[in-house]
Amino acid sequence: MIVVMSKDSGEKEIAAVVKRLEAAGLKGHLSKGMERTVIGVVGIASVLPDLRETLVLMPGVEDVVPISKPYKLASREFQPHDTVIKVGNVSIGGNEIVVMAGPCAVETEDQVISTARAVKAAGASILRGGAFKPSTSPYSFRGLGEEGLKILAKAKEETGLPLVTEVLTPADVELVVQYADILQVGARNMQNFTLLDEVGKTKKPVLLKRGMSATIQEWLLAVEYVLSQGNRQVILCERGIRTFETYTRNTLDISAIPSIHKLCHLPIIADPSHGTGRRELVAPLALAAVAAGADGLLIEVHPSPDTALKDGAQSLTFEHFEEFMAQLVPVAASVGRRVAGKGG
Amino acid sequence: MIVVMSKDSGEKEIAAVVKRLEAAGLKGHLSKGMERTVIGVVGIASVLPDLRETLVLMPGVEDVVPISKPYKLASREFQPHDTVIKVGNVSIGGNEIVVMAGPCAVETEDQVISTARAVKAAGASILRGGAFKPSTSPYSFRGLGEEGLKILAKAKEETGLPLVTEVLTPADVELVVQYADILQVGARNMQNFTLLDEVGKTKKPVLLKRGMSATIQEWLLAVEYVLSQGNRQVILCERGIRTFETYTRNTLDISAIPSIHKLCHLPIIADPSHGTGRRELVAPLALAAVAAGADGLLIEVHPSPDTALKDGAQSLTFEHFEEFMAQLVPVAASVGRRVAGKGG
Amino acid sequence: MIVVMSKDSGEKEIAAVVKRLEAAGLKGHLSKGMERTVIGVVGIASVLPDLRETLVLMPGVEDVVPISKPYKLASREFQPHDTVIKVGNVSIGGNEIVVMAGPCAVETEDQVISTARAVKAAGASILRGGAFKPSTSPYSFRGLGEEGLKILAKAKEETGLPLVTEVLTPADVELVVQYADILQVGARNMQNFTLLDEVGKTKKPVLLKRGMSATIQEWLLAVEYVLSQGNRQVILCERGIRTFETYTRNTLDISAIPSIHKLCHLPIIADPSHGTGRRELVAPLALAAVAAGADGLLIEVHPSPDTALKDGAQSLTFEHFEEFMAQLVPVAASVGRRVAGKGG
Amino acid sequence: MIVVMSKDSGEKEIAAVVKRLEAAGLKGHLSKGMERTVIGVVGIASVLPDLRETLVLMPGVEDVVPISKPYKLASREFQPHDTVIKVGNVSIGGNEIVVMAGPCAVETEDQVISTARAVKAAGASILRGGAFKPSTSPYSFRGLGEEGLKILAKAKEETGLPLVTEVLTPADVELVVQYADILQVGARNMQNFTLLDEVGKTKKPVLLKRGMSATIQEWLLAVEYVLSQGNRQVILCERGIRTFETYTRNTLDISAIPSIHKLCHLPIIADPSHGTGRRELVAPLALAAVAAGADGLLIEVHPSPDTALKDGAQSLTFEHFEEFMAQLVPVAASVGRRVAGKGG
Repeated sequence: MIVVMSKDSGEKEIAAVVKRLEAAGLKGHLSKGMERTVIGVVGIASVLPDLRETLVLMPGVEDVVPISKPYKLASREFQPHDTVIKVGNVSIGGNEIVVMAGPCAVETEDQVISTARAVKAAGASILRGGAFKPSTSPYSFRGLGEEGLKILAKAKEETGLPLVTEVLTPADVELVVQYADILQVGARNMQNFTLLDEVGKTKKPVLLKRGMSATIQEWLLAVEYVLSQGNRQVILCERGIRTFETYTRNTLDISAIPSIHKLCHLPIIADPSHGTGRRELVAPLALAAVAAGADGLLIEVHPSPDTALKDGAQSLTFEHFEEFMAQLVPVAASVGRRVAGKGG
Repeated sequence: MIVVMSKDSGEKEIAAVVKRLEAAGLKGHLSKGMERTVIGVVGIASVLPDLRETLVLMPGVEDVVPISKPYKLASREFQPHDTVIKVGNVSIGGNEIVVMAGPCAVETEDQVISTARAVKAAGASILRGGAFKPSTSPYSFRGLGEEGLKILAKAKEETGLPLVTEVLTPADVELVVQYADILQVGARNMQNFTLLDEVGKTKKPVLLKRGMSATIQEWLLAVEYVLSQGNRQVILCERGIRTFETYTRNTLDISAIPSIHKLCHLPIIADPSHGTGRRELVAPLALAAVAAGADGLLIEVHPSPDTALKDGAQSLTFEHFEEFMAQLVPVAASVGRRVAGKGG
Repeated sequence: MIVVMSKDSGEKEIAAVVKRLEAAGLKGHLSKGMERTVIGVVGIASVLPDLRETLVLMPGVEDVVPISKPYKLASREFQPHDTVIKVGNVSIGGNEIVVMAGPCAVETEDQVISTARAVKAAGASILRGGAFKPSTSPYSFRGLGEEGLKILAKAKEETGLPLVTEVLTPADVELVVQYADILQVGARNMQNFTLLDEVGKTKKPVLLKRGMSATIQEWLLAVEYVLSQGNRQVILCERGIRTFETYTRNTLDISAIPSIHKLCHLPIIADPSHGTGRRELVAPLALAAVAAGADGLLIEVHPSPDTALKDGAQSLTFEHFEEFMAQLVPVAASVGRRVAGKGG
Repeated sequence: MIVVMSKDSGEKEIAAVVKRLEAAGLKGHLSKGMERTVIGVVGIASVLPDLRETLVLMPGVEDVVPISKPYKLASREFQPHDTVIKVGNVSIGGNEIVVMAGPCAVETEDQVISTARAVKAAGASILRGGAFKPSTSPYSFRGLGEEGLKILAKAKEETGLPLVTEVLTPADVELVVQYADILQVGARNMQNFTLLDEVGKTKKPVLLKRGMSATIQEWLLAVEYVLSQGNRQVILCERGIRTFETYTRNTLDISAIPSIHKLCHLPIIADPSHGTGRRELVAPLALAAVAAGADGLLIEVHPSPDTALKDGAQSLTFEHFEEFMAQLVPVAASVGRRVAGKGG
């Protein structure tokens, strides 16, 4: 952290800042220029946003500039090599592209099992499906709850596909953990800190979606919540940010993929279904994500999207999905990777 | 809802859409133009986003346009007159401007009680203070918890000021309800639907902050969650939205105030402290909010902002707050209102 | 500017940075901390973005942090007292609130003259009206051109009101200068640098609207373009920024008003007509702007908004405008100001 | 266009709307539902935004919903097959991926010619370089002007590479046309309508960058400006939009690529250099753009980025560029395309 003193500050103000730093167990290094003095601060505590805000208010202080990252366990500096997360037979974050596919919401046993078979046949490695659904309107479908989890369990039994499913609230963690192989925390809950604490106390991998208006730094701080509770298995998922554009439901921020790889050692996947909200954009954006370095994909597939209870407009049919998986293989190969469920 | 058929759609596609609508218990009214056919749909269910998404996918359909509002209990059409919410001796949503003031976070008994006295003397009617604090970083201060609530209770006993305090997670609602006069749901929790359900089951007024990237419509749908559980006492709070501008912490959307008054019968207040993140902007934005029709203000006040554990940079000192309250009186009068705590 | 070296940088990298700075005529002051070295740089050139970008790329450099403002003539530091701009009999930036009103686009002589009389009677001090209109679609009305300017001139002759009108392109500056008392540069042209140069060479006051996605800093740099050409009479105009919200046409950033007053010595007015795009929001947002410190307002008024060729939805009728001006007087008084055209 | 009447509107209001439509040469088709009446409007004029705004204001009207696209010549409906644009030996919009590379700004003859040779050797087909540079600050480098164009001409003579270069203002079009093979209109000028008119009158292909805060529809309307002047050769260029994220300079909207292909028959390329502002993100985003269907790329290359006068932080060195071009070949092949300058 660097404290920049204003041009008209004097010895007294500088001494006060140095004293304040010492009170916080830190040390300030003065650098007097012709125009102004800057004070360099060292020590771990120097990253705390609250201290920064305090210093900004002191007389004679013009600005306080953070120079360290406020997250630690999530950073590449802390762990230079890639974290690879094992789920059943698949490894996320290694050489393979892992495709997680299935319906947005669990509706019926038929729907889920037929979808599970279809996506497995096409090369998906993990089954997705929501039993607890966040819904903007209180009058919309909110999921089948535990009944939905049981349906997912049957589909797993049938196909052997591990499950990723969302947990909405701390009180449900205990229940969902019994069914899920990966606990999903949705975009609206990225800063539900109590929920982050709870999934951080489990031993299950966590799929943490980026909040709709979260910066990359805030996202990594949310990851840090989970890691700091002892759970080191977090998979990040870029699912689009909110912008002024209305043609797409969200703007999928493909640049977040290589950015996360640079800053953080954990795997990152992309969700082009929510990221675009339009079925015809799912395949091109999924290919783009893999070309940019994504470690996997989360894709909505439904036996008949036009009768889906949730998000039909962005779901692929079985045929579309199969076609897409065939396109994916050469794109993955072109960046030196292979698709997990596509034998060879 | 209106279903717009594409130019090249034929009788078959139109019939299919009409049939689909009937299956959902709705009726479609055809209007054949020279260029294309549009199908008007009536009935309450016509507002459900899921049906809309289904229809968009049907062959021959170009667009589906919602024409009713998706919320009902919150709307002016449902209740044309203003809702006035009584808290202790004050009424929110009537002729008076209600000022809620206090520290961002409860730190010590001294801090809270001295602040409560100071803000009451200056004309505040409700004491604010957080015992459970959301924090972007897991390493920052997260509040004193129940101990903080007890400190607030003492301050209430001393000064008679009712309390507004945040509840972060459904499991804490039962506890917080015992202390709070108004339950605050923060911006990060605006779409924490489980929490909305829980506060909707209590009998306490709810202060619902707008999410950082929530549209006015999404905000009113979050209000609808609370109302639909039976709790009709919701106070909306505009606290700034996330934009590209970095000079201010958020962009306080003053236009949301008269917009909410037009669409909804519930009171709305503004939080210029979080809305700007800069102490020197708090007073001008607070005055602006009242000039635009706000029913109250939520303002951070701290005995010594430069040692505050949270949000010092945006907190007013006692002197600043007193000065501000003196400025507020004539501005409130200029739009035909009076400040609740300023006798006269 | 401060150059922050990375933890693992050594003497060689530091020496290279210092040498690079000297090549640019600057001096670097070293400050060696336990964790890393920072290099403070002084001198005017230190604000240039290009040098900053160069330094960021050098081996061992982790970040380069600007600490001076990149604009100078526009800054409060350069000129601490408020600039007051005289236009005819009115002063903009002094104690009076100056209201500029009139139609979005000049359509007919009748329309403009009747509007000019009505707004003058209600207390406006300056007539607005566009002869050259930017239009998103090539098929929409683009203004009457010089004929429109002549109509404005007649209205000025009739009423004595000075004129503010937009200039769209450098080649038109010479023409528009002959008619306008204030040259308006629109939001879409805020970074039309050639146009900024040209209006900077005239002696007419310039009304510079904020670009739809311009930060406050970029806006002040656009102001700096005009000032650096020798024209020191710039009036800033906040007209709303683009955000994700769709209920309003733009989001009027009221916080920009006190922010500009803090950073810059020039007057700032608000345009609630474009800023909201909704007639019923114009009055509350105009009052809010004045409560927050605006020096004036730009308001669209039309004899019959429902037949207007441009922006009818956000224009006030004569009656609405008169009513609004009556509301404005006490609000201006409540913040210690008076409305220019309201005698007494 | 559909006019939605409010629930409480009566025959009189409906008749007035129908009459207003007829006055505009349009016809309204009534559809009376149980809840409300909707009026369908047909005819080309129905897309004009101004008429829509007028109708919104009429008594009894609740909403007016556009159902046709406001652009025509740019639309896929107008021309279903892809437009292919020939520049020298290359075709843009066909099977080949066309790479345009070179320095951000022309600085010296050496710089440009060495870069031209290097990028040609690596497989670029078109040379980019700016002689007229937009600059946020009036104190930054603004380009060499005609001298820069002459340097580009020499580089073309040396290497045979066609040139793409920016034109900033209508008065320069005549000059730039003499040197450029493709006229670039930058992001800040996307709504400089006078400039769009002028380049629309030339016979040179136009590279039209998306504005920083332009929606896809506004971008296509800007394209329509050029097309409606008679110039049918427009290449769209996605270069990132402004969002709240600050880690990247802009957010490259990869979803715009397949969206434009769906809505419009013209070619689209991507600019990952400006789109990210970070050198290490250029290659992954360029590969992503091609995987998503981009017809080409615009990439900044500089002999020594750390001494570049403009945008060094996002420029590739010759080595980086060569390495990138080698990566590009298999990715292009994986989506069934080949890179124009890479022989085979």
